[in-house]
Amino acid sequence: VFQQSSHSLLHEEWANLAPVQQVEQFKSLSVAEAKKFLIELSTWEQARLLSALPEDDRWLWLRALAPDDAADVLQQASEDERKLLLQHLEQTTRDEVAGLLAYRQDVAGGLMSPRYAQLHDDMSVAEALAYLHRQAIEHVETLYYVYILDAERRLIGVTSLRELFAAAPELSVKQIMHTDFIRVTDDTDQEHLSLLFAEHNLIAVPIVDGDGKMKGIVTIDDIVDVVEEEATEDMQKMGGSEALNAPYLEIGLLAMIKKRAGWLVILFLSEMLTANAMSYYENEIAKAVILAVFVPLIISSGGNSGSQATTLVIRAMALGQIRLRDWWRVLRREVVVGTALGVVVGVIGLCRIVGWQAMFHSYGEHYNLIAATVGVSLIGIVAWGSVAGAMLPFILKRVGFDPASASAPFVATLVDVTGLMIYFTIAASILRGTLL
Amino acid sequence: VFQQSSHSLLHEEWANLAPVQQVEQFKSLSVAEAKKFLIELSTWEQARLLSALPEDDRWLWLRALAPDDAADVLQQASEDERKLLLQHLEQTTRDEVAGLLAYRQDVAGGLMSPRYAQLHDDMSVAEALAYLHRQAIEHVETLYYVYILDAERRLIGVTSLRELFAAAPELSVKQIMHTDFIRVTDDTDQEHLSLLFAEHNLIAVPIVDGDGKMKGIVTIDDIVDVVEEEATEDMQKMGGSEALNAPYLEIGLLAMIKKRAGWLVILFLSEMLTANAMSYYENEIAKAVILAVFVPLIISSGGNSGSQATTLVIRAMALGQIRLRDWWRVLRREVVVGTALGVVVGVIGLCRIVGWQAMFHSYGEHYNLIAATVGVSLIGIVAWGSVAGAMLPFILKRVGFDPASASAPFVATLVDVTGLMIYFTIAASILRGTLL
Repeated sequence: VFQQSSHSLLHEEWANLAPVQQVEQFKSLSVAEAKKFLIELSTWEQARLLSALPEDDRWLWLRALAPDDAADVLQQASEDERKLLLQHLEQTTRDEVAGLLAYRQDVAGGLMSPRYAQLHDDMSVAEALAYLHRQAIEHVETLYYVYILDAERRLIGVTSLRELFAAAPELSVKQIMHTDFIRVTDDTDQEHLSLLFAEHNLIAVPIVDGDGKMKGIVTIDDIVDVVEEEATEDMQKMGGSEALNAPYLEIGLLAMIKKRAGWLVILFLSEMLTANAMSYYENEIAKAVILAVFVPLIISSGGNSGSQATTLVIRAMALGQIRLRDWWRVLRREVVVGTALGVVVGVIGLCRIVGWQAMFHSYGEHYNLIAATVGVSLIGIVAWGSVAGAMLPFILKRVGFDPASASAPFVATLVDVTGLMIYFTIAASILRGTLL
Repeated sequence: VFQQSSHSLLHEEWANLAPVQQVEQFKSLSVAEAKKFLIELSTWEQARLLSALPEDDRWLWLRALAPDDAADVLQQASEDERKLLLQHLEQTTRDEVAGLLAYRQDVAGGLMSPRYAQLHDDMSVAEALAYLHRQAIEHVETLYYVYILDAERRLIGVTSLRELFAAAPELSVKQIMHTDFIRVTDDTDQEHLSLLFAEHNLIAVPIVDGDGKMKGIVTIDDIVDVVEEEATEDMQKMGGSEALNAPYLEIGLLAMIKKRAGWLVILFLSEMLTANAMSYYENEIAKAVILAVFVPLIISSGGNSGSQATTLVIRAMALGQIRLRDWWRVLRREVVVGTALGVVVGVIGLCRIVGWQAMFHSYGEHYNLIAATVGVSLIGIVAWGSVAGAMLPFILKRVGFDPASASAPFVATLVDVTGLMIYFTIAASILRGTLL
């Protein structure tokens, strides 16, 4: 489907090698090839490769990375190792990297690059182009946007290489720069930042500190990783485990068990309430064992509709399509949708019992009452599942938790316990005097 | 947290207005403001706004969009409306848009922009810079990469504005261009394409046809939308419904019911097997009602561990961390992890029964056998849930389905039915001669 460069072909195979072989392969490359290869690896792979290299090579190759990438790799290292590696960097880079290490990895400051194209506000367009020419030969992350700073390094405007090209050379950059543009403070959450990029189709955003001083830029290629990372975290939470924060095959078995045992135990403890509920209705079950037969079918249908609703709402929230104040609109929708789905499923359940009775006479003389119990319960429980599943993310968000914690299994457990109560209450009122 | 431009503030409020008010607000903007505002809207919103505008305004504003964005908007329109709108575009744009409309929206050709910076292979660096200067003043999507085409418009090399800046003016572009680079054919799937961007930290990729002729470029800002869209589709499928392909609050109630009813009914029909399984064990339940009491607890635990495993595996597959050939490694991991999780949960279940017995004498003289039945069943079912949940995406992918269809509810349903059989088989062998 596509032609890859020779390096990327190597990369595919390389990722599956043992660490020792990875180092060997890496060392067999020419310096230029090795540099390009290293830059294209993920942070995870860079850190693993660097730590597998002999100590002397390690800091040599660390220098090949851009300061924001080097900082990401150093985040993975131990405290001691980090200090050691920092010492080996050149003064300028060391300061840049140390500055970036001060930020949490999931805020704008932790994503930004300190290497951006900048101009002084007193330059002319001709001077600016000559100055950028020099900056381009050195390293800047992107020339797409060019930032204009005042004498205190405060960000006062933005322009682009294209606009500088098109402008009359004798104009001052102040005359052509834009002053109405989006900037972000260094403590902005990365999820928020990625929504901003998506909403405004941005290529790069300047990052300023509390005083409006320019600190760096975040470019859209870093945001792709953020979007992917945040979606992965949300999915893993929605599946009922903690976020792994590492590739599936990379994480140790013990760590994997820990990440999954927590929620599984919490769900199990909550689900124990179903045993209490069932015990509470033990006499009814003893009188009409047929009621127990439909328990898994009925409670799982509620869990399924709840899982649908909670997934749709959580994702819409993450994409900024639904805000807290929309809860009422969502509730109204889910009541209608949930009831409709309940009727569909309820009618099928009713037909199943009537049909089975006609064919196998499985359910005795009161089969019609049993069919009614199952049908009505399904309508109630599927509707309740949709409503509970849709509202739970709102409640979690309102009290300050991550709405993605309203995982499908969590909603299913909640609906299982309440579903049993709905089922046996309806059974009691329909079957009293006949089976019960 | 961040300062927005005045337009983006407007956007927030605007999105919540009724269509008539949206048009009014839009018309109250100056032409320059309106253009900037329109470009920043999502395709979805652009299409809705344009269709709400009077006919004369509609094509006027359609012209304001870049050809790839215009093509996306036209994808949303009806066949007739599309033809009508196309006629109103200028000749060049019309050809570009019509060319893009020929592609499916989820392949590279449907994402690309036909406006890229290009050079002829016989130019010198000085000529190239002068030529780019002219292209920059017109419209190209990005100046980050510059593509070198031969006389037949075949893509033969790539360079960057930065490299041109740095090169001696008298060199030819052929001497400084790179010939070992990644290019992609126009029929490449967008999910594949986004993995390629992520793997190689790309900013833009050139798109060629089967003959190697340059067709356009896909830039990373389009890929952010793809990554978000693919993650949303996967999540919605993993939650047990079809992908909505529209924002939650935008989709009609009937469409919403249709998207959810399909899977809900399939799951319900499969879950009906639990009623058969329960009927099959009706005699056992009649003899020992206590067995029914633990049914929801036991089968849901299997569903929960299955949900965890399937989510982790599906996401790892989507990110390219796991390939089909890794199934054996995943199976081994899940056997170990699932068994460990089963032991954790099984021990808690066992303690619950022994503890309840000590406190309330709920379970009669054979409480220890009941505890053993529940404990052993939990180990077996949680381990089985993990394995089944992890393997299902592999099986689906192997036979050509989307692995994300192995939704949490689907796995839970599968594990419910098999889990009942495991539970009652274990119960029969432990309790035979006492309760059964």
